[in-house]
Amino acid sequence: MSTPESTLTADEARLIDRYWRAANYLSVGQIYLLDNPLLREPLAAEHIKPRLLGHWGTTPGLNFIYAHLNRVIRERDSNVLYICGPGHGGPGMVANTWLEGTYSEIYPLIGDDADGLRRLFRQFSFPGGIPSHAAPETPGSIHEGGELGYALVHAYGAAFDNPDLVVACVIGDGEAETGPLAASWHGNKFLDPVHDGAVLPILHLNGYKIANPTIMGRMSDEALCQLFEGFGYEPFFVEGADPMPMHGAMAATLDRCFDRIAEIQRAARAGTAEGMPRWPMIVLRSPKGWTGPKEVDGKKVEGFWRAHQVPVDAARESDAHRKVLEEWMRSYQLDELFDAEGRLLPELRALAPEGGKRMGASPYANAGGLHPLKRPDWRDFAVDVPHPCGAIAESTRATGQYLAEVLRMSADARNFRVMGPDETNSNRLNAVFEATDRAWMAPIEPYDDHLAAGGRVMEVLSEHLCQGWLEGYTLSGRHGLFNCYEAFVHIVDSMFNQHAKWLKVSRELDWRRPVPSFNYLLSSHVWRQDHNGFSHQDPGFLDLVVNKKADVVRVYLPPDANTLLRTVDHCLGTHDRINVIVAGKQPAPQWLTAEEAEVHCAAGVGIWDWAGTDGDGAPPDVVMACAGDVPTLETIAAVDLLRQHVPGLKVRVVNVVDLMTLQPHEEHPHGLTDADFDAIFTRDRPVIFAFHGYPWLIHRLTYRRTNHHNFHVRGFKEEGTTTTPFDMVVLNDLDRFHLAMDVIDRVPGLAATAAHAKQAFRDKRIAHKLYVNSHGEDMPEIRDWSWPYKTAAEAGD
Amino acid sequence: MSTPESTLTADEARLIDRYWRAANYLSVGQIYLLDNPLLREPLAAEHIKPRLLGHWGTTPGLNFIYAHLNRVIRERDSNVLYICGPGHGGPGMVANTWLEGTYSEIYPLIGDDADGLRRLFRQFSFPGGIPSHAAPETPGSIHEGGELGYALVHAYGAAFDNPDLVVACVIGDGEAETGPLAASWHGNKFLDPVHDGAVLPILHLNGYKIANPTIMGRMSDEALCQLFEGFGYEPFFVEGADPMPMHGAMAATLDRCFDRIAEIQRAARAGTAEGMPRWPMIVLRSPKGWTGPKEVDGKKVEGFWRAHQVPVDAARESDAHRKVLEEWMRSYQLDELFDAEGRLLPELRALAPEGGKRMGASPYANAGGLHPLKRPDWRDFAVDVPHPCGAIAESTRATGQYLAEVLRMSADARNFRVMGPDETNSNRLNAVFEATDRAWMAPIEPYDDHLAAGGRVMEVLSEHLCQGWLEGYTLSGRHGLFNCYEAFVHIVDSMFNQHAKWLKVSRELDWRRPVPSFNYLLSSHVWRQDHNGFSHQDPGFLDLVVNKKADVVRVYLPPDANTLLRTVDHCLGTHDRINVIVAGKQPAPQWLTAEEAEVHCAAGVGIWDWAGTDGDGAPPDVVMACAGDVPTLETIAAVDLLRQHVPGLKVRVVNVVDLMTLQPHEEHPHGLTDADFDAIFTRDRPVIFAFHGYPWLIHRLTYRRTNHHNFHVRGFKEEGTTTTPFDMVVLNDLDRFHLAMDVIDRVPGLAATAAHAKQAFRDKRIAHKLYVNSHGEDMPEIRDWSWPYKTAAEAGD
Repeated sequence: MSTPESTLTADEARLIDRYWRAANYLSVGQIYLLDNPLLREPLAAEHIKPRLLGHWGTTPGLNFIYAHLNRVIRERDSNVLYICGPGHGGPGMVANTWLEGTYSEIYPLIGDDADGLRRLFRQFSFPGGIPSHAAPETPGSIHEGGELGYALVHAYGAAFDNPDLVVACVIGDGEAETGPLAASWHGNKFLDPVHDGAVLPILHLNGYKIANPTIMGRMSDEALCQLFEGFGYEPFFVEGADPMPMHGAMAATLDRCFDRIAEIQRAARAGTAEGMPRWPMIVLRSPKGWTGPKEVDGKKVEGFWRAHQVPVDAARESDAHRKVLEEWMRSYQLDELFDAEGRLLPELRALAPEGGKRMGASPYANAGGLHPLKRPDWRDFAVDVPHPCGAIAESTRATGQYLAEVLRMSADARNFRVMGPDETNSNRLNAVFEATDRAWMAPIEPYDDHLAAGGRVMEVLSEHLCQGWLEGYTLSGRHGLFNCYEAFVHIVDSMFNQHAKWLKVSRELDWRRPVPSFNYLLSSHVWRQDHNGFSHQDPGFLDLVVNKKADVVRVYLPPDANTLLRTVDHCLGTHDRINVIVAGKQPAPQWLTAEEAEVHCAAGVGIWDWAGTDGDGAPPDVVMACAGDVPTLETIAAVDLLRQHVPGLKVRVVNVVDLMTLQPHEEHPHGLTDADFDAIFTRDRPVIFAFHGYPWLIHRLTYRRTNHHNFHVRGFKEEGTTTTPFDMVVLNDLDRFHLAMDVIDRVPGLAATAAHAKQAFRDKRIAHKLYVNSHGEDMPEIRDWSWPYKTAAEAGD
Repeated sequence: MSTPESTLTADEARLIDRYWRAANYLSVGQIYLLDNPLLREPLAAEHIKPRLLGHWGTTPGLNFIYAHLNRVIRERDSNVLYICGPGHGGPGMVANTWLEGTYSEIYPLIGDDADGLRRLFRQFSFPGGIPSHAAPETPGSIHEGGELGYALVHAYGAAFDNPDLVVACVIGDGEAETGPLAASWHGNKFLDPVHDGAVLPILHLNGYKIANPTIMGRMSDEALCQLFEGFGYEPFFVEGADPMPMHGAMAATLDRCFDRIAEIQRAARAGTAEGMPRWPMIVLRSPKGWTGPKEVDGKKVEGFWRAHQVPVDAARESDAHRKVLEEWMRSYQLDELFDAEGRLLPELRALAPEGGKRMGASPYANAGGLHPLKRPDWRDFAVDVPHPCGAIAESTRATGQYLAEVLRMSADARNFRVMGPDETNSNRLNAVFEATDRAWMAPIEPYDDHLAAGGRVMEVLSEHLCQGWLEGYTLSGRHGLFNCYEAFVHIVDSMFNQHAKWLKVSRELDWRRPVPSFNYLLSSHVWRQDHNGFSHQDPGFLDLVVNKKADVVRVYLPPDANTLLRTVDHCLGTHDRINVIVAGKQPAPQWLTAEEAEVHCAAGVGIWDWAGTDGDGAPPDVVMACAGDVPTLETIAAVDLLRQHVPGLKVRVVNVVDLMTLQPHEEHPHGLTDADFDAIFTRDRPVIFAFHGYPWLIHRLTYRRTNHHNFHVRGFKEEGTTTTPFDMVVLNDLDRFHLAMDVIDRVPGLAATAAHAKQAFRDKRIAHKLYVNSHGEDMPEIRDWSWPYKTAAEAGD
């Protein structure tokens, strides 16, 4: 815990201090100034922005770290990615990328001189300008930080499979109170020093949040030391408020940390070390609002929560406040920072690294310098389906075999990982373990199953970590898939939202390279929670997803193994999207051959002639639509019932794989035109739609369609418990009997002529319920999947 | 870290061991048996359930802890609440409550004899029976645990303001990997030994999850000790697999922990101790599937992840498996456990506590033995509104004053808390600090602001902790409110889901007492994110909420201070619900007096005659509806524009406070009848609906209404950044100009006759955009709120 001796000469320290002051000056300027960027004239009211928006408190600390990392990068020729957990310190990130020249290169309108400075200041938190937080617009950032908690998990994600990278991850002490961050410290149990880069956590304790002290800010060094040693780190402390000693301490500590990182990697890569290394980390205690006003209006500001946002808030209206601001800004001694044209002085500019080594220009922060993902032909893994319902398979198992091959093909490039909260086996993807192992740095027992340091399947019982790791991994240019229980993906709703927001903005920036898509495979879904109950039943993630910008999101509900394979393969080839795939893992009847799956998935929606009873080309009496594997099964079974009990009824079966096809063409690139939609769903026939999720979503997607008033949707209506698979659909009126009854209710005239059939369906439903309650399993007739083919074959299809 | 000497005699240890064996036997029986509950005949295929569902692995550990807590409770007359983090160990919780007699008291069909046992076994994970997890149906539980992560935060929530309670909280080592659990350890920084009870965390390391080792299971005792001492606890270790020594170690450790708790509380309550005590905790290392089969089919089961669910999975089909099962069950030596009638032997029954001291019968687990919440008359805090728009106020500030009074009135009962992630000041509720402080056990500095051990405002930068604490607090019968930034409440989407599911089930159980409602106050909402940007803009929580069962959820969008006051007051008086209130914190025009607010809120929706131009009783030309404070402001402003530019146009203004009124009467108890709905929204006039959230939600709620095809909804369409308040509504086409243009587009004939007006609105919109981009603030005309009243007054309303 002792602080090492400074590794800086006095001159070096003074230069770094000037650089830091320049960054601080630029940060204050962004928050306050419309004009007069170099204070060439006395500060006047009209130089001050009318609305003062931004966060000062965290910023000087961020600038301090940035300046010191610059030195380390230059001296060691390191690749460093700067993750700014307190992303609200946006002014600091912008200031530093301007100082190092990156900003003006990317945004030529913001030049490197006085006029550029004026524009730099003005645009910040200004309409038509840039946001107050680090954001996609910020060079060198892969992390927004508006919603706190994900800095460290992003850092680990970026470090995996980037052996030459050090991710310096600044974690605010506010952020450190969040759940995701608290769990993220365990990332060290998964970081392989041979194949992965390093993460250097820098816990920045400035002591305060918006209006409160922080928990860790009030913990003693001893307690913090215990805590982080318990987590497996070697903590170094840098503490103080006096700049020059702090420069010495920070430089020495960073040198020691980078030395430690190099030693760990050297030993591991030489094969002379095994097990989990004790990676270094830094605890930096510095005042909130460091170098800002000590007091304003007699109230404590520096070193207190009042420094959080804008410490002098009436600088435009009040001469006294403006005087405080001017003194504060001049305290950075501009003449030691900028030349007559407002350019950073050459001796300071020389402190920044060059080219892609600059943290603002790091290729690692811009989707990497990447190998595209190699994929096999998915048809090689297709299930043989001699005819519809002619095979039984577990959809996800076939996909597991495909993913294993993707893992094999990416073994050298190491640019593909599979994440999951301990559910890869449960979701039947276990073939992946024929190609790789689970990443694991903790002790391994002889009887353990596929654990190894270099594994590329990541399992940890935290959806937050899986999500955040894959975000960091894809934002730095690599590929992956997150498999998760459907119900529990809600745990990362908010992370999904933030990632979708990031992609919405980043894809509009020319200088940002395409980011490999984030792919979800949601299994163990609402309809098949055999060991679990109501708590595990929730298909609502799809509703959340559809709220996001159409360009960014896709939702797929492949009904069987081959459609799932084709969908997963397609998604792995996309970028700048979030693909959500929902598919079951249980043995289930198969419908389509690989060739048919290709055609069906390419269209996203289609009429299944073989399943319907409207083969003569005439308009159907009713459309039975389905989306999702279980609803598809129930729909096909309902058609079979109708075929037997209501002969002559013309039923058209429509299956929807790509949910976005339902949206208007104008709202989503995958949306059907109205003409195409009407051709499939008719303009006037009843549509009984069996849907995997909450029924509302189908109404929402289709409410502008011609025939919407005829849509009758069945789906999950929040009824569930631990029960049999078929009882689950019965509880929610999604079962074949109910669907068939719906048809009789909705087709004009049928209620009278087919009353006997409806009664038969109702009787079967009751009989089943009684059977289930006494036997504890579904009736054999329900578990028998030979009927659709048999009946269809008998019907001569 | 040393394990103390056993405090049990050999006889006591043997008795506890028998009790534990009984619980284990009952747990296995529930997973496997349909019949032959006491193995009075050889186990046959027909005795085995056809579907074997449940989780064995965690269960013997849970039973072990339960048995030992029973002894402590008896000896010390303690009140202990058992939180079962690994809630999938449901068979254990059910077994123990049956052994202690609670189960048969609550569910008389499940008697305390052999027939009761048979029913007990059969109902588990069986259709029409009980779920596989601990659930609302489970006596003594306030925690389901299907979604892992919330055990410890629930435990702290239950302990706050329950000074006589010890919450024994079992945390699985899988659960310990989640983010929310990782942050929950910091609960000790908020637990006041004077006014609160104690939490005894029992970290149960059985080493494995579904298919992986656990992180903590592979950490050394030394590392765990450092970690938990770093968190501020005093950890005690109980480790082993040999039952008798384990009984001794567990008994001695529990005694020591309860002694420590008593000492801490005695000292704090006597005033002889200050600051944060070092509370004890237990690390229990025992084998997964302890006492189950060591191997099955030659594969390691006990002490490995294969013990997670059903260790012998073909017991019905395979004689060999059934033999393993029978030997396993008989190893518990039934003759030492049950009498001839299948009743627990009296010497074992005597080991359980009596009455309400039994953990399954604890009143603390059934909404407590409670004081109802005292509330003042909310009208005492009403803002004076001489006429619509006759006052400017911050809505949440008035509510802060009301909440301060609630805190004062509950000072003795200590049955009300306010939670928030460091946003109570930011959300302008700071009047609460006139009545109480922020709970804070860490060191306090002289300049700190309202921090104190006994404070009842809880601020921590974790939405997970706020949510979980308040769940635990309300499920144990107390009241509260969670104030949160609107965008970041998505962080707890999944916790909301689980809590809604709990309430849906618990309110249907006669023996469960009503649970005080969970109240959200979402402020700093999407339309007013001045310091922040796109990352802070998301109104989608409402979509999630509306997916849940109608009986459980309510959504309110009060448009001003008095309607907010009335809504908050109403919600605090309800039970078994989740109330979501969205309201702004910025200064804004006020519309309704207290009397008007009462009428308007009681109806939930109403026509605002004073705001419209259809005062003559004739049907309007158009309905302008609004829900939310900013949409209401823009609507009223749009009407003002129309009044000036399209004289004679009859506009009806409808304001919606209670979103649920829009739903069909059949679907939600608050839903308007179709007749009432049509009377307000008309059957055939265009409706321009300005909505706070995503527009889809209004369509979803109204799509069955007569006039739905005329609904044209504006809301958030995912466009945002750091900008001015008015620019935000412009970006999303929710601004007054756009709404007025919508009216002209939608009212038949108006497009031709009012083209000039539409052009004027378009021009104003562009002029504003230009002004904002050059000045950085909204035009003075936009910031001037005197117009609606002025114009209305001029019009003679």
